[in-house]
Amino acid sequence: MKFIAEIDIMPHKELLDPQGKAVINNLGHLHLSGVADVRIGRHVQMTIEADSEAAARQTVETACQKLLANMIVETFHYVLKGA
Amino acid sequence: MKFIAEIDIMPHKELLDPQGKAVINNLGHLHLSGVADVRIGRHVQMTIEADSEAAARQTVETACQKLLANMIVETFHYVLKGA
Repeated sequence: MKFIAEIDIMPHKELLDPQGKAVINNLGHLHLSGVADVRIGRHVQMTIEADSEAAARQTVETACQKLLANMIVETFHYVLKGA
Repeated sequence: MKFIAEIDIMPHKELLDPQGKAVINNLGHLHLSGVADVRIGRHVQMTIEADSEAAARQTVETACQKLLANMIVETFHYVLKGA
């Protein structure tokens, strides 16, 4: 079975996000007001061929924990869809 | 009204994504098989204070087109939720 995983890897809420702060400052220069709390992370899409949804979830979680995310400063969330 | 925008900024499908290719290669070293088509982009969360949903959408689209995304090599998609 084929699955598509949509993974969001974001900095922990407790941590400062200097990239997000830079975006807020620069939105002001574009005369866009009302924007706050900008946080910037990574978005990963992958296609997984697995025997079951549970196996696909296991693959995504191992990939995130061991390779894609730095679990000390980041958290990840994902959605798995049938392809 | 307060809205939360969840924005995904991804490289165009037509373009090579060397970062994604590197991830596929390295997943093999972790003995994770069955993963293909990895593409890596950015995920941006922002809070928007606007008079209406239409105004909030306008703010997100302007921010993406003028600051967050490079429209030559990237596309963006977003979901707007009431906060």
